[in-house]
Amino acid sequence: MDFLNTIDRYESEVRSYVRSFPTVFEKARGSWMYDIDGNAYLDFFAGASVLNYGHNHPELKRALIDYLEADNITHSLDMASVARAEFLKAFNDIILEPRGMNHRIQFPGPTGTNAVESALKIARKAKGRPGVIAFTNAFHGMTLGALSVTGNQFKRDGAGVPLSHTDSMPYDSYFGGDVDTIDYLDKLLTDGGSGVGHPAAVIVETIQAEGGVNVASGEWLQRLQDVCRRHDMLFMIDDIQTGNGRTGRFFSFEEYDLDPDVVTVSKSISGYGLPLALVLVKPEFDIWEPGEHNGTFRGFNPAMITAKRALELFWSDQRFSREVEAKGERMRRFLEGLTERYPQARGCVRGRGMMQAVEFAHKELAGAISKRAFAHNLVIETAGPDDETLKLLPPLTTEEKDLERGLEIIEQALIEAMGEFGLSTAEAAGQ
Amino acid sequence: MDFLNTIDRYESEVRSYVRSFPTVFEKARGSWMYDIDGNAYLDFFAGASVLNYGHNHPELKRALIDYLEADNITHSLDMASVARAEFLKAFNDIILEPRGMNHRIQFPGPTGTNAVESALKIARKAKGRPGVIAFTNAFHGMTLGALSVTGNQFKRDGAGVPLSHTDSMPYDSYFGGDVDTIDYLDKLLTDGGSGVGHPAAVIVETIQAEGGVNVASGEWLQRLQDVCRRHDMLFMIDDIQTGNGRTGRFFSFEEYDLDPDVVTVSKSISGYGLPLALVLVKPEFDIWEPGEHNGTFRGFNPAMITAKRALELFWSDQRFSREVEAKGERMRRFLEGLTERYPQARGCVRGRGMMQAVEFAHKELAGAISKRAFAHNLVIETAGPDDETLKLLPPLTTEEKDLERGLEIIEQALIEAMGEFGLSTAEAAGQ
Amino acid sequence: MDFLNTIDRYESEVRSYVRSFPTVFEKARGSWMYDIDGNAYLDFFAGASVLNYGHNHPELKRALIDYLEADNITHSLDMASVARAEFLKAFNDIILEPRGMNHRIQFPGPTGTNAVESALKIARKAKGRPGVIAFTNAFHGMTLGALSVTGNQFKRDGAGVPLSHTDSMPYDSYFGGDVDTIDYLDKLLTDGGSGVGHPAAVIVETIQAEGGVNVASGEWLQRLQDVCRRHDMLFMIDDIQTGNGRTGRFFSFEEYDLDPDVVTVSKSISGYGLPLALVLVKPEFDIWEPGEHNGTFRGFNPAMITAKRALELFWSDQRFSREVEAKGERMRRFLEGLTERYPQARGCVRGRGMMQAVEFAHKELAGAISKRAFAHNLVIETAGPDDETLKLLPPLTTEEKDLERGLEIIEQALIEAMGEFGLSTAEAAGQ
Amino acid sequence: MDFLNTIDRYESEVRSYVRSFPTVFEKARGSWMYDIDGNAYLDFFAGASVLNYGHNHPELKRALIDYLEADNITHSLDMASVARAEFLKAFNDIILEPRGMNHRIQFPGPTGTNAVESALKIARKAKGRPGVIAFTNAFHGMTLGALSVTGNQFKRDGAGVPLSHTDSMPYDSYFGGDVDTIDYLDKLLTDGGSGVGHPAAVIVETIQAEGGVNVASGEWLQRLQDVCRRHDMLFMIDDIQTGNGRTGRFFSFEEYDLDPDVVTVSKSISGYGLPLALVLVKPEFDIWEPGEHNGTFRGFNPAMITAKRALELFWSDQRFSREVEAKGERMRRFLEGLTERYPQARGCVRGRGMMQAVEFAHKELAGAISKRAFAHNLVIETAGPDDETLKLLPPLTTEEKDLERGLEIIEQALIEAMGEFGLSTAEAAGQ
Repeated sequence: MDFLNTIDRYESEVRSYVRSFPTVFEKARGSWMYDIDGNAYLDFFAGASVLNYGHNHPELKRALIDYLEADNITHSLDMASVARAEFLKAFNDIILEPRGMNHRIQFPGPTGTNAVESALKIARKAKGRPGVIAFTNAFHGMTLGALSVTGNQFKRDGAGVPLSHTDSMPYDSYFGGDVDTIDYLDKLLTDGGSGVGHPAAVIVETIQAEGGVNVASGEWLQRLQDVCRRHDMLFMIDDIQTGNGRTGRFFSFEEYDLDPDVVTVSKSISGYGLPLALVLVKPEFDIWEPGEHNGTFRGFNPAMITAKRALELFWSDQRFSREVEAKGERMRRFLEGLTERYPQARGCVRGRGMMQAVEFAHKELAGAISKRAFAHNLVIETAGPDDETLKLLPPLTTEEKDLERGLEIIEQALIEAMGEFGLSTAEAAGQ
Repeated sequence: MDFLNTIDRYESEVRSYVRSFPTVFEKARGSWMYDIDGNAYLDFFAGASVLNYGHNHPELKRALIDYLEADNITHSLDMASVARAEFLKAFNDIILEPRGMNHRIQFPGPTGTNAVESALKIARKAKGRPGVIAFTNAFHGMTLGALSVTGNQFKRDGAGVPLSHTDSMPYDSYFGGDVDTIDYLDKLLTDGGSGVGHPAAVIVETIQAEGGVNVASGEWLQRLQDVCRRHDMLFMIDDIQTGNGRTGRFFSFEEYDLDPDVVTVSKSISGYGLPLALVLVKPEFDIWEPGEHNGTFRGFNPAMITAKRALELFWSDQRFSREVEAKGERMRRFLEGLTERYPQARGCVRGRGMMQAVEFAHKELAGAISKRAFAHNLVIETAGPDDETLKLLPPLTTEEKDLERGLEIIEQALIEAMGEFGLSTAEAAGQ
Repeated sequence: MDFLNTIDRYESEVRSYVRSFPTVFEKARGSWMYDIDGNAYLDFFAGASVLNYGHNHPELKRALIDYLEADNITHSLDMASVARAEFLKAFNDIILEPRGMNHRIQFPGPTGTNAVESALKIARKAKGRPGVIAFTNAFHGMTLGALSVTGNQFKRDGAGVPLSHTDSMPYDSYFGGDVDTIDYLDKLLTDGGSGVGHPAAVIVETIQAEGGVNVASGEWLQRLQDVCRRHDMLFMIDDIQTGNGRTGRFFSFEEYDLDPDVVTVSKSISGYGLPLALVLVKPEFDIWEPGEHNGTFRGFNPAMITAKRALELFWSDQRFSREVEAKGERMRRFLEGLTERYPQARGCVRGRGMMQAVEFAHKELAGAISKRAFAHNLVIETAGPDDETLKLLPPLTTEEKDLERGLEIIEQALIEAMGEFGLSTAEAAGQ
Repeated sequence: MDFLNTIDRYESEVRSYVRSFPTVFEKARGSWMYDIDGNAYLDFFAGASVLNYGHNHPELKRALIDYLEADNITHSLDMASVARAEFLKAFNDIILEPRGMNHRIQFPGPTGTNAVESALKIARKAKGRPGVIAFTNAFHGMTLGALSVTGNQFKRDGAGVPLSHTDSMPYDSYFGGDVDTIDYLDKLLTDGGSGVGHPAAVIVETIQAEGGVNVASGEWLQRLQDVCRRHDMLFMIDDIQTGNGRTGRFFSFEEYDLDPDVVTVSKSISGYGLPLALVLVKPEFDIWEPGEHNGTFRGFNPAMITAKRALELFWSDQRFSREVEAKGERMRRFLEGLTERYPQARGCVRGRGMMQAVEFAHKELAGAISKRAFAHNLVIETAGPDDETLKLLPPLTTEEKDLERGLEIIEQALIEAMGEFGLSTAEAAGQ
C-alpha cells in the first residue's frame, strides 16, 4: 500500500501535520520515531506536549498491557472501576494534597477542548453570568465554547457563527512593556461604562504555547488572580499544554503561589498518548448536578492506568522536576547563544522549562527551519499567529545526548534557512 | 481501599452512572462485567452502545496488544502512520465503497461531540449561513455547538449562555400521527415570513436514542432529505449511537436509500471502547482548510487498529448483520409480549434492531425497573426527557442464552416495580 | 422644484412608499389627500393605521395649534408637564379604568419599535430569562430586538447579524385548520426535551396586519393566554396597528376577555400622526429602575395634547365604536360579495372591524389592484410575505359615501387587474 | 389636578427627569421654562441638546403653525411630500454640499436610537461582517442594537440578554495619556490572533456626552479614521448630541478634516423638539433594498418644516457658528476660573463649544450642584458613569446675560454643595 497516497485519497482536507512531516511513521520509543523505511526521527514536538514521558514508555506500556491482558474494564462510561478509584487517589495523594489543593476531579471527556467547555460551564453556573475573559493569542480548543475563548481568527472563522459571551483582553506585555495590561483590565472591570460588564471568569494559559510561546510573568499572573478575587470572578488556568511537568513542576503555576479556582489538564496526563482530560475544581464551585455534563469517553480506564503509573514514576519525588529544569536551562542557553551567534536572524528567545522557543523577526524563518530540520530527521513545529516562532517541545525524558543532537540540527537548519532567505551567516558567526 | 468512597470523595459531583450502578467493576468479557467481589453482571447497556462487539473482544484485544507490544506509534497527532492509512483503506473498502459512498473521512477529535461540532462547522462553511435545524428530543453532545442542537433543557441550561443559531423542529410523530412534521418544516422553510429563515443544514438521528428511543420512519427521513435538497441545505445524520450495526446494518440509514451529505460516527467504531470518532463528508463539502479544525487526540492509532480489525471481523460479509436482525426481532417480540402480559404497566414498545425500548405511561416505572434489574445483576438504563423509557442496548454479540437471561430479569424487575407502585400484576398476568 | 426628482436624488435607496404612490402630496383632510396638482386621493391606507381619525382632524388641529401658539412646553425630555399629567389621567380615566385595567403607562420613545423593545426588556427582567416566543409572520419593528420577533426574512436579513433569544411558533391556523397550534406550543413548553426551554414571554398581534391580515380567533388568544399563565410567562399583546379602535373597540383584544400583562400602543394614539408610543404594563411587572430605559423623545408633549383630545372626542362613549363596527361590516360584506362575483380571482376575505383584507391565490393580483386603484385615485396597500393580500385600512372616520367610493374603485381595479393577468371576469360577473 | 401626583400614580417607574426636577413645567420660550406657579427656570440642559435653538423659537413656531393651519400633510409614511422634498434640498444645499459631502439622506425613524440601528445595519450589509467596534463609555441608544454599542452597564443589563457582535475599545486617553489607544486598536485589528477579528465598522462620538463629556482629540479621530480605511471598515460618527452646532460648527467633526462614511443626526435637527432623525450615508454604501428598514414615523413632515427653517435661519452663513464659539469660550474660561478658585473641589474642565463640563474628583459633588442649582431655578444635569460630571448644555441661542446668570448660579451651587460635603471654600477663594 502507498500509505501517503491512501491518506491523501481518503482523509479529509482538514488533515494538517501529515503535510508538514510527509513520511509514514510506524514505530516509536522514547524521543525517537521511526518511519516505514527504518529512518529514525528525533521528536522535538512530542505530540504537542502529549508525550512528556516519551513515546511508548516501557513501564507505562507494561502497566497498560498487563491491564488489557487481564480483561480488566476498558470501557464502562463513568461507572465505578478499580482503575478509576486508584487514579483518583493517586492524583490526590501525589499531586493535589502535597500542593495544598483540595480540588475535586472531573472527567469532562477525553480531550482538552472538552475540559475547557466544562470549565466555562462551571464558571457561568457558579457566578450566574455569561461573560468570560480570555486573552489575545489564547488557544483553548476547537469546539464552539472553547473557540470563543481562542484568539486565532483563522480557527474562529471556522465556526461559521459569531462567537459570543467572551471578551479578548491583552495578555502580559501584549502592548509592549510600558502598558500594564492588568491595570487596563482592572479599569475596564471597575468602570461601569466600559462595556465589558461583569464577567464570570478569566481563563488564561501561563504560557500561550500555540499563540507563540508568550510567557506571562509570575507577577502578572498573581495580579490577574487578584483582579479575579476583587471582581468576584473565577480564576481559571488552562494547563493542558503547559502542565504535566513541561515547565519543570507538575503544574505550570506552582512556582508563582497561585490558587486557581479551576484548572484544565489533558495531553500528557495519561503519559502514553491515550485520550484523557481532567477539570480540577474547588469544592465550592463543584456545583454540578449529576450528569449535567456527560459524555461517552469520560471513563477511559486504560488511560487512568497509565496516568497513575506515570504519577508514581515521575512525581513521587522531585528528581524528575530537577532534571526538567536542568534540561530546560540547557535549551535556553543554547537558544540564547544561537540568537547571539546569528544576529541577522533577529531571534527572540522565550519559554519556561522544556518549552522554549525563538520568535524570528523574519516571519518565514521559523517555518523554513522546521522544514529543513525535518530533512535532517528532527520533528519540530512552529507557533504564533503567523507561524513565526520555532517551538521546542522535546519529551521531558529526552536523554542529554539526544537533546544536544536536536539542538545541533536546529543550528544547522537555521544556517540553511538563513541562506535561503539571503541572510548572511558568515559575519554573524564571527561575533 | 474503599473504592466507592474514594470516588465519592475525590470525583466531581457531575459523576452519574456510578450513582445508578453502585458497585466497583473490575473485569469484563463479552456481555459480562465483574465487580471486585466477583459478582457477574449482564450488560444490557454496552457503554451506551460503545461496546457493540462486547467487552474486551479477544480478537480485538490481540490486535491491540500486539500493536502496543511492538512499539508501534501510539500517538502522533495527525502525522501519517501505518495504522491510520490502513484504517482509512479498510473503512473505505469494507464500508463506504460497497455502499456507493465516496465520502471523505475526517478525524474530528475522539468523541461524538467533537464530530458534531465539526459537522456544524462544515455545514456553515459550505453554505455560508449560520442556522441549523435540529429536532425535539435530539441529543448530539455536551460542547457548546453540540448542545445548541440538543433538546434536553437540563443539559442546555448547563451551558450558562443562551444557545443560538439553531431551531428545534418537531421530530417524526412528535405531535401525534395526524400532524405531518415534514410538511410543517417545509412550510416554515418556504414561507418567507416564518421567522425560520434559510438554515445551512439539518442534523438528525434516525433513532433518538437518548431522547427516548424515538424511531423515525424511513419515509419521514426520505422526505426530510428531500426537504434539504429542495431548500439547498445539507442533510446530516448523527449515527453515533445508532451506527456500527446497532440497528442491523452498519449505518442505521442504509435500509432507507438515504444519501446523507455528512455522517457522524463514534462510540463503537473502535470496537473496544477506545475513543475515536469520524465525520464522513461528501467530497464537494470537504472544503476545510488544512488545520482549520484540529485537536490533540485526532490520531489515536491504537483505536484505528481495533477499528480496522472490527470492520474485518464483523462487516466483511452479511452474517453479523443477519444475527443482529434476528436477535433484535427476538427482543422486540419479547417486549411486545411483556407489554401485553402486563397491560397495567401501559408500556409502548419501539426501536430498531438491537436498540429496543419500552416507554411506560407511569413515568417512574422505567427507573424502578432499572434499579431492580441491577439488584438481579443486569445493567440496563433509561432514556427520554423524564427517564420514562427503558432502553435495551445489549452488545450485538450477546449470546442467545444471555439475551434470554436478560429478558427474564427485565420481566422479573417489571413485576417487582409494578408492585412497588401498587399496580396489580396478577390479573394482568391472567390476560 | 421637481419634487420627485429631488427626493430620488437626495434620499436613501431605502425609501419605499414614494415608489408605490408616485405623486407629491401637499395637503390632506379627513380621508382625502391632495397632490401638488390639486388631484384628490381617497386614503384607504391611513398611514398604516396611524390616521384612524383621518388627516388633520379639525378638533385635534385646533388643540395642537392652541397649545403651540401659547408657547406651552414642546420638548422637555420626561420632566413633568401639564400636558403629560393630563394625558396620563385621561388615558387612565377614559381607557384603562373603565376596562378594569390598572396598567402603568410607560413612554418608551415615540415609535412602535421602541415600545416593543421596552416590552421585551420588561419580560426578560421580570422573569430573569432571555427567551421570547413570537409567531410566524409577526411584525413588531425594525430595531434589533423588535426584528428578532419579526418573521419576515427580508427584514430579518437586514440585521446583518443572527437574531437570537427568540423562537418563532405557528400562529393561529398556520398549518391549516386541523393542527392545533396552541396544543403544539404547549407541548413544546411542557416537554423538557423540546429544545424550546422556558421563555420569559409571548408577544402576539391579535391580527397580523403586516403579515397578511391573519386573524387570530378569540379562543386561540384565550388559550394562548392560558399557556402563558401555566408556564409562568408574560402574555404581551402588540396592539400598535390593531389598537386605537381599528377593530371596533379601543383595544383589539377587548371583546375576548383577555388580560395581557403588557400591551404596546402607538400609531394612532396621538390621533394626528405625531410620533407617540406607550407600553402598558401591570404594576407587578413595572419593575424598571428609573432611567433604565430612556430616550430623547419620550416626552413629546404636543402629541399628548392631541392624544388626550382624541380620547375625549372618540372614546368617551360607545358611539364611535358602533360606527366603526357598522362600517367594518359593510366593508366585509362588500369584499365577500366581490370574491363571490369574481371567483376566478380566488380571493379569501379576512379581517376584523375596519381592517379588512382579501388574499388572492394569484399572488400578483393584490399588487396589481393597488397600482390600478392608485390610477383611480385610491391609496391602498398590500400585505403578507409575498404582498399577496390587499389590505383595506381607511380612516375610521371615513364618511359612508367615501367608503362606498373606495369600494367601487377596488372593484374596478380588480376587474382591470384580472384582465391584465388574463382572468376572465365576464362569466364571473354572471354568477 | 395634582399634576406631580398624577404622574407618580400612572406613569411607569422608569420615568427619570421628573425625579431630578420636581416641578410641573407649563410654558417655555428661548432659554427659559416656566412652571405652573409662574416660576421661571433657566435651562442649561436644553432637552439634552434637543433645543439648540431654544424653546419654541418664534420663527420656527410660525413656520410650523402656518404649515398645520393650511392642512398640509402631517403624516404620510414616506410618501412624497412638498415638505420632504424641500427639506432634502435644503439639507443638501445648506449643509452637505458646502462641506463637500455627497451623502444620501435616510429617514430611519424619528429618534437617535433608530438612526444608530440603521447605521449598524448599513455597516454590516456593506461589509458582510457582523462585528462593530464601539468605545468605552459610549452612548448610542436603548434599542437592542444601539445598546450593544453603548458602554453603560446599568443600561446594558436592562436588555436582559447578552449583547453581542460588538467590541468595546478604549476611547481617547481612556487609559491615561501615555497609552496610545489607536495603536492598541490597530494592533488588535492587525494581529490575526487577537480574538477581535475583522469588524465591519467603528462607531464613535467626537465627544462622549452621556459618558462624561469625554473629548476626543482631532488627531485621535483622524487616526481612527485611518485605521478604518486601512482595515476596510466603515467609519461612522454618531453626531446626535454633538451635532447641530453644539460644538460650534454644524457637525462636530468639521474642524478635523474627517470624512465619515456614515453620520447619525437627530435631537436638534428639527430645531423645535419634534422627533426627527437622519442617517447620512455615502452613496457607495447606500445599498439598501427599498423598505429593508422601514417604520411608521419616518416621514414626520412638520419636523421637516421646522428643520428646513432652522437650517435657513442659523446655517446660511457663519454668524451663528461664531457666536456659539464665542459663548463656548466664555463658558470654558468661567469653568476654568471656577476650578482654580475652588481647588478643593478638584474639578477638571473639558468640552468643546457650548458643551462644557466639570468632572469632580468627589463623585457626589456634581449631583449636589445640580440639585442646588435647581433650587436657584437653573436646570442642569450630570453625566458620566457615576454622574460625577456637571454638564452645561445651554441653548446655543442663550443670551449673554442669561449665560452669565446661569454661570453665577453654578458658582453659588458649587459653594453650597462644597459646604454640604465639608469642603472648605474660604481658603479656596483666597487663592
